Amino acid sequence: MTLYIVGIGPGGRENMTLKAIETIKKCEVIVAYTPYLNYIEDLIEDKEIFSNGMRGEIERCKKAVEFAKSGKDTAIISTGDAGLYGMAGPIYELAEDIDIEVVPGVTAAFSAASELGAPIMHDCALISLSDLLTPWDLILKRIKMAGEGDFVIALYNPRSKGRPDNLKEALEVLHPFRDDATPVGIVRNSGRDDKTVKLVTFDTIPIEEIDMKTVLIIGNSKTYIKDHKMITPRGYENK
Amino acid sequence: MTLYIVGIGPGGRENMTLKAIETIKKCEVIVAYTPYLNYIEDLIEDKEIFSNGMRGEIERCKKAVEFAKSGKDTAIISTGDAGLYGMAGPIYELAEDIDIEVVPGVTAAFSAASELGAPIMHDCALISLSDLLTPWDLILKRIKMAGEGDFVIALYNPRSKGRPDNLKEALEVLHPFRDDATPVGIVRNSGRDDKTVKLVTFDTIPIEEIDMKTVLIIGNSKTYIKDHKMITPRGYENK
Repeated sequence: MTLYIVGIGPGGRENMTLKAIETIKKCEVIVAYTPYLNYIEDLIEDKEIFSNGMRGEIERCKKAVEFAKSGKDTAIISTGDAGLYGMAGPIYELAEDIDIEVVPGVTAAFSAASELGAPIMHDCALISLSDLLTPWDLILKRIKMAGEGDFVIALYNPRSKGRPDNLKEALEVLHPFRDDATPVGIVRNSGRDDKTVKLVTFDTIPIEEIDMKTVLIIGNSKTYIKDHKMITPRGYENK
Repeated sequence: MTLYIVGIGPGGRENMTLKAIETIKKCEVIVAYTPYLNYIEDLIEDKEIFSNGMRGEIERCKKAVEFAKSGKDTAIISTGDAGLYGMAGPIYELAEDIDIEVVPGVTAAFSAASELGAPIMHDCALISLSDLLTPWDLILKRIKMAGEGDFVIALYNPRSKGRPDNLKEALEVLHPFRDDATPVGIVRNSGRDDKTVKLVTFDTIPIEEIDMKTVLIIGNSKTYIKDHKMITPRGYENK
């Protein structure tokens, strides 16, 4: 049997791929972080479910592998893309002797970008500010390198109660490489009905308002605002 | 009327989002690079079509804006995600006084990643080696920064007849930051029926085989191979 690692996109049904939907429909068992069940409840009424809460990732992965080993097609659910900060890594690290298939999805940075205009367009760095599994110094080094390389930068997991100051510190490291007027897009609950979209500048980022459900997109040196949209031109020379 | 900038994902129908399909279905006019029409032909039989060839991007954008201005819901098609090296930027740069909506999609890096295992997982840099619109020195600087920051690196447009040596040069810049044994995934025609997937190491990249239809994913310092899959562990400390 196969263990499918399914990226369901940012949350709304419309941004799910056909394959994600069909894979969930055909599996016998669904394994998910409990709040994600809401996004797919109409697809899983007749299925065996294992779900749990925050920090339960590894237990979910182990359960999913067990279900697949016991002969049941199983889908383990990630939001966004399963291969970026999702479940594909832990599953491949853990699993032995089962078929595994990753179903890609729309990741939060691109969903947020679509709601902001065309802020990415060009070479970009995707960085998580969660230091739960990554040394904070390495994260800050990446921020610096992405700043120096004039990448558009998308920040995942920018701020939580447990680490309220990470974002502030990251922005301080980035400051030498970005004008105060650099456009910054802030999208909370991207792709969901209750999304909020805000456009600010580098020197006016409302740090206190930002939480784990938010993605920040920080422009490169060419990014500008036009008619309330954030635009990074495709050509570097012609702007 | 609305101009929709639609990312159809890597090519196969299964990786399109519901919204991309529904948007194409409801539009009166479709604007596309001619070869992309193949991916959606069954959806567009009754529609007005404008398509053209390579280097025709700006003409397509102008046409799409004209159609929308003339009162017709119009979809302009990008493969992958429309907001990364796609049509969202040029449209927003050109357009005035029309409604625009970007429909995000699965970009090639994540599609290729799903076919390789879990090679991205962590902070990553997406870089195009096309120097048509970007100074080559800036691209090389980004390669260096991404190398130094130990990002997983996805290379788009890695090599073409017009610039056969860009990839080689980029890899030389990256060399000081990557062990020879670093896993590298090479996926051609990701997400399509005729895809090919290859797993090599940094010192054995078959440069001559690589073309514009290929995406390369170069691991970070923790990436490893297990059972013919490329895996970047999620945790930095626990490996």
